[in-house]
Amino acid sequence: MTGEIRVIPLRGIAELEEDDDLAALLVSASGRVGGFEPYDVVVIAQKAVSKVEGRVVDLSEIEPSPRARELAAGEDPRRIEVILHESREIIRTRPPLVIAETQHGFVCASAGVDASNAKGRDTLILLPVDPDASARRLRDRIHELTGIDVGVIVSDSFGRAWRRGTTDVALGVSGIVALRDLKGERDSMGYELHATEIAIADEMAGAAQLVMGKTDGIPAAIVRGLTAAGDGHGSDLVMPRERDLFR
Amino acid sequence: MTGEIRVIPLRGIAELEEDDDLAALLVSASGRVGGFEPYDVVVIAQKAVSKVEGRVVDLSEIEPSPRARELAAGEDPRRIEVILHESREIIRTRPPLVIAETQHGFVCASAGVDASNAKGRDTLILLPVDPDASARRLRDRIHELTGIDVGVIVSDSFGRAWRRGTTDVALGVSGIVALRDLKGERDSMGYELHATEIAIADEMAGAAQLVMGKTDGIPAAIVRGLTAAGDGHGSDLVMPRERDLFR
Repeated sequence: MTGEIRVIPLRGIAELEEDDDLAALLVSASGRVGGFEPYDVVVIAQKAVSKVEGRVVDLSEIEPSPRARELAAGEDPRRIEVILHESREIIRTRPPLVIAETQHGFVCASAGVDASNAKGRDTLILLPVDPDASARRLRDRIHELTGIDVGVIVSDSFGRAWRRGTTDVALGVSGIVALRDLKGERDSMGYELHATEIAIADEMAGAAQLVMGKTDGIPAAIVRGLTAAGDGHGSDLVMPRERDLFR
Repeated sequence: MTGEIRVIPLRGIAELEEDDDLAALLVSASGRVGGFEPYDVVVIAQKAVSKVEGRVVDLSEIEPSPRARELAAGEDPRRIEVILHESREIIRTRPPLVIAETQHGFVCASAGVDASNAKGRDTLILLPVDPDASARRLRDRIHELTGIDVGVIVSDSFGRAWRRGTTDVALGVSGIVALRDLKGERDSMGYELHATEIAIADEMAGAAQLVMGKTDGIPAAIVRGLTAAGDGHGSDLVMPRERDLFR
C-alpha cells in the first residue's frame, strides 16, 4: 500500500566548480534534514552535475560554422554552433528556438545547452555526456560515504509538445525503476490495463522541481516514501525512434 | 523559502456513480489524514470526476460512421466513433493508437476516451466537458463543506512526444497558479532567466500520481506545502495552436 511521499529540498549547496565532490556536498546538505534514508531518491539538477563534470564551454573559443550562422537568425551563432555539436538531429527551428535531438536521444530545446547560472556571461553548460553514468557515480559515492543505498535522478527542465511550460524530467537514473509497467495488472474493476507504462522517474523529477525552483539555489531534493528500487535507466524513458510518431 | 512538500493519498473512496457528491467524499477521505488545510492542493483523477458528471457512454448505443470503420483497423469501430466525436482534429494514427486534439485543445491518446475502470466492459469514460469548471465546482463545494480554501487539479495520464510512459498532467485547475512565470527573475548568478514558464500544475499532478496509482483505487491526493494560490486554469497549459511547432 502506497503511503505518503515527502519531497525535501536540499539547501546550502554553494556554487559548484569542476571536480567538486557533489555527492559529499549532497550528503552534507542532507545532514540538515536528518540525513539520507534507505530508498530515498535523490534528485539533482543536471546543471549541478554538468558543472562538476566540467561540461562548460567558453564561448570565446567557439568558431561558428556557416550552418550555425545561417540558423542563428540574429542570435549568437557561437551558441548555435555548440547546439549543433551537441545534436544528432535538428527537429524544428523557429528562431531563437531550436528543438534538437541530443547525442543521447533526448528531444529538447537547444539540445539541453543552457546559459543561465554559468560562471560568467560567456559560458554555456552542456548536458552530461552520460547522465545514467553520472547518476550511478553519485549513487555509488553516496553509498561509500554513508553506507546508505539511495536512488539517484539527474533531472532537467524540458518543454513539451502541445503544452505550455516546462516540467522536470529524468535524464539519468540509478538504483530505481524509471518506467513502471502495469501491463497485465488489473484495475479496481478487474479490467486489464493497457498502455500503462508510467514514467515515474519523470514524475519524481517534476515533484522535486516544485521545491528546487530555478532561482533560489536549491539544486537537489529528496523524494522519500516510494518503493521504487530497481535497475532503471534514463534511457528507458526515451521513445525509440521507430516507435516515435512525432519526428 | 520553499519548504518540504507532502503528497498524501486519499483512500477509502468507493466506486463512484453519477451525481455522487465527490467533494463530500473527498472531505470524508481527508478526515482519515487529519483533514484539509488552507493552501492544500487536491488532485483528483479525471475518471472520478467524469463518472460523477455522467460522462460515460454505452457502446451498445453507438453506430460507427464510415470514417470510424476506416480508422478502426480491427479495433472496435464504435470506440473510434466516440473518439472522433470527442476530437477537434486527429493528429496521428497508428492503429490501434489515435492521437487527437480534444474539443478542449488537449492533444492526447484516444481524445482522453478510456475504457478501464468503467462500469462494465461496454462503456467508455469521456473527459469532463469543462475540466476547469469541474475543478472550480469541487473547490467551491469543499469550501462550502469545510470553510477551507483549497486548490483543485483534475488530472489525467497523458503520453508525451519523444518520451516513453505517461505522466499525469492537469486538465482542470482552480484556485492555484497553473504556470509559474519566471520571466524577469534572476537566477542565483544574477542572470535573467528566459523561457522559464514552469508547468507547476502538471508537476503537482505527476507528484500526486506517484501515490494514486492506477490499480489500487486511490482517485485523489493532497499536495501540501506549496504556496501556489492563484487564478490559473488548465487551459493555460495548452499551447496555442499558432505557437505549436508539433502539429
